[in-house]
Amino acid sequence: MSNEKIPYKIYLEESEMPRAWYNLRADMKNKPAPLLNPETLKPMTEKELSKVFCEELVRQELDEDTAYFEIPEEIRNFYKMYRPAPLVRAYCLEEKLGTPAKIYYKFEGNNTSGSHKLNSAIAQAYYAKKQGLKGVTTETGAGQWGTALSMACSYFDLDCKVFMVKCSYEQKPFRREVMRTYGASVTPSPSTETEVGKKILAAHPGTTGSLGCAISEAVEKAVNTEGYRYVLGSVLNQVLLHQSVIGLEAKAALDKYGVKPDIIIGCAGGGSNLGGLISPFMGEKIRGEADYKFIAVEPASCPSFTRGKYAYDYCDTGMVCPLSKMYTLGSDFIPAPNHSGGLRYHGMNPILSQLYEDGLMEAVSVKQTEVFEAAEQFARVEGILPAPESSHAIKIAIDEAMKCKETGEEKTILFGLTGTGYFDMMAYEKFHDGKMTDYVPSDEELEASLKKLPKV
Amino acid sequence: MSNEKIPYKIYLEESEMPRAWYNLRADMKNKPAPLLNPETLKPMTEKELSKVFCEELVRQELDEDTAYFEIPEEIRNFYKMYRPAPLVRAYCLEEKLGTPAKIYYKFEGNNTSGSHKLNSAIAQAYYAKKQGLKGVTTETGAGQWGTALSMACSYFDLDCKVFMVKCSYEQKPFRREVMRTYGASVTPSPSTETEVGKKILAAHPGTTGSLGCAISEAVEKAVNTEGYRYVLGSVLNQVLLHQSVIGLEAKAALDKYGVKPDIIIGCAGGGSNLGGLISPFMGEKIRGEADYKFIAVEPASCPSFTRGKYAYDYCDTGMVCPLSKMYTLGSDFIPAPNHSGGLRYHGMNPILSQLYEDGLMEAVSVKQTEVFEAAEQFARVEGILPAPESSHAIKIAIDEAMKCKETGEEKTILFGLTGTGYFDMMAYEKFHDGKMTDYVPSDEELEASLKKLPKV
Repeated sequence: MSNEKIPYKIYLEESEMPRAWYNLRADMKNKPAPLLNPETLKPMTEKELSKVFCEELVRQELDEDTAYFEIPEEIRNFYKMYRPAPLVRAYCLEEKLGTPAKIYYKFEGNNTSGSHKLNSAIAQAYYAKKQGLKGVTTETGAGQWGTALSMACSYFDLDCKVFMVKCSYEQKPFRREVMRTYGASVTPSPSTETEVGKKILAAHPGTTGSLGCAISEAVEKAVNTEGYRYVLGSVLNQVLLHQSVIGLEAKAALDKYGVKPDIIIGCAGGGSNLGGLISPFMGEKIRGEADYKFIAVEPASCPSFTRGKYAYDYCDTGMVCPLSKMYTLGSDFIPAPNHSGGLRYHGMNPILSQLYEDGLMEAVSVKQTEVFEAAEQFARVEGILPAPESSHAIKIAIDEAMKCKETGEEKTILFGLTGTGYFDMMAYEKFHDGKMTDYVPSDEELEASLKKLPKV
Repeated sequence: MSNEKIPYKIYLEESEMPRAWYNLRADMKNKPAPLLNPETLKPMTEKELSKVFCEELVRQELDEDTAYFEIPEEIRNFYKMYRPAPLVRAYCLEEKLGTPAKIYYKFEGNNTSGSHKLNSAIAQAYYAKKQGLKGVTTETGAGQWGTALSMACSYFDLDCKVFMVKCSYEQKPFRREVMRTYGASVTPSPSTETEVGKKILAAHPGTTGSLGCAISEAVEKAVNTEGYRYVLGSVLNQVLLHQSVIGLEAKAALDKYGVKPDIIIGCAGGGSNLGGLISPFMGEKIRGEADYKFIAVEPASCPSFTRGKYAYDYCDTGMVCPLSKMYTLGSDFIPAPNHSGGLRYHGMNPILSQLYEDGLMEAVSVKQTEVFEAAEQFARVEGILPAPESSHAIKIAIDEAMKCKETGEEKTILFGLTGTGYFDMMAYEKFHDGKMTDYVPSDEELEASLKKLPKV
């Protein structure tokens, strides 16, 4: 089909929106390793997990066989408020780059949470409500997950307690007000509200926190509060399940126009967006129906895939969570305060870790300054001011498009534009003022934290 | 047609997007009064206006006869990056209110400028580029117009100098960074960069500025700089022409489903959104093809329609602009610093002023605190965090829906949701903390500024 017929933005009709989430595990030949009980080192049971998580979400977390989970009508109705997300053909970027490549991005920023996080937040809030809970606790890095969960909880009238990674809390004062608008309470982490927070503060005075540490606090709070459970915006398999809506919509939109991407690119922190975006395409690849090149892009300051180890590790700094087999930098690793709070996580989702281990996906790491250069370039031609997290994918998409310019290949590139950077202007200011630094952990630093991996 | 068939969001296809702007003046029986030369008090000629404005824009400003202006292809292509804007059926708000009313809103916030302002910015930048100019100057209140213009200028490689109303500059530090990302320079107004700025600072030391004053500075700068012209985001008839794309899209989307609104509501500052939204509907009303109730909503702190006078007045504080016949509070009126910077303008577009004078439209004023109450209520059920400006329309839409609840009438309400409030979190914080005030000017204050209206 000729390019002229493809609109700038492809919106699915409401009737074309996915009615079920896709569970990639059902098609994986090598299944991701099970979560382990940190005390017994045996696989976590449904019962054990249900102390921390909502029951239905535990079932989704453990299910490796069911390929499709129907999306409940209440969630589909909420999705209709801000979805389908547009699949955008980046005509202006292509022209600016002078590349023969065809670039598409799935834009998930057209909602107040500013990112794809809302896709899983509303699902998790729904199951919490259905279970009759009073509220949920969680952590947030960049603030996008916390905002998304606040919105979801407000919709279902649930209480919402958010532990926000301290460096983001300080960098993004207005994120707190958005969450407050939706009725959530927000605490900078590490805090003195939990035992684990106090311990971390004692061991690392002046720490700016990390996702791993905020998770520990939120879990402790949930377990110790009647009628509460903990919910998580990334890393878990249930999150990838919900986020598969990104990939399913993107694929449906491309299929409508007979377009098949050659390269699929996503930024990778805990893996929620990357996993969601690639799921249906990866399913085809595994089933031998099509071939795609997948690229995970992570910050050089927190390089789980490219410099981490595939091993069992704690999901959180406080070691209160189950052990997960994943690419990890060690749960003790606290990344330098960079401006992609959403990507500052020491580990990686188990499904993605297994796919990477099996050679089904590639990974690269990029430095902060080059990410912001790509972000600004993108903003100026495509209009959208991207989140720093999303800009990791932009950077590599541009690189791949420039390779096509050299070789003359007309590759089709799809990347995930996870969100907007409206609450990241302090970071953009640093970039404009030339004050941005490119921290990369030393080998010694990584060795030190990897040395502490649990013996499993 | 039954409600069940109407989706949550109606998106037009790219092929259904308007190919021409609609010029309401062509259908008006009483045409708006002409702009006058402040020295000769004779109608401004094309030649005189061309010293300040781009030539093609002057033609659009003065044309009362041409009903449709074709939208140039370059502008239509830019529109395709962020338009069509969705027409949303507010199912969740209706349910929450328990109203039989059917509420729709045209959402213009899905772009980085955060508002409808981009619709006219890209048109004005296009004509400036076509004329071979180096750059443009402008003013911005809330920062939305300045951001929009920065984006448009960046797209066409034009220089962009923005005078930003000081109180907004201080309330919204991150807006400046967005404009900077797009390569614009931003000066808080009043400034010492212009003669008029210096004069105003001398007369009102410590003033937080106003749109009228920033306009004077931008005009002076444009007129005194080779290769520059001045562009304006509201008030002018050309802006209403470009903004008609809002109403045209809204009408096309409603027509697709056979829906006819009973009440059409828009917030009113200079009139750009209100005029754009109502234009095609008002055209039908004037031509006797349909009847609609139109409501302009303005802040009680700056009540041009409801407490102003229909008279010739200066468009700017410095009195360097042409005289315009409009509803005005007097060009000397400097509104209290409220949190709807985009609505802090002493006058009103001449077309809208004439329509209001002719009884074709109603107007109400609302206080800041009740506006934020409506904003929060809306955000919690509809997901979108609205701009304070847009929330004026939300407030009255909710009021009208509640009247329907009392009477049992199933009226169809359409309102303009002009933008998002992501850069207004300081205002939301004040609201949450109970620190918001409701300033209303006294009769004496208004009399004093109205007394100074020019004798024409």
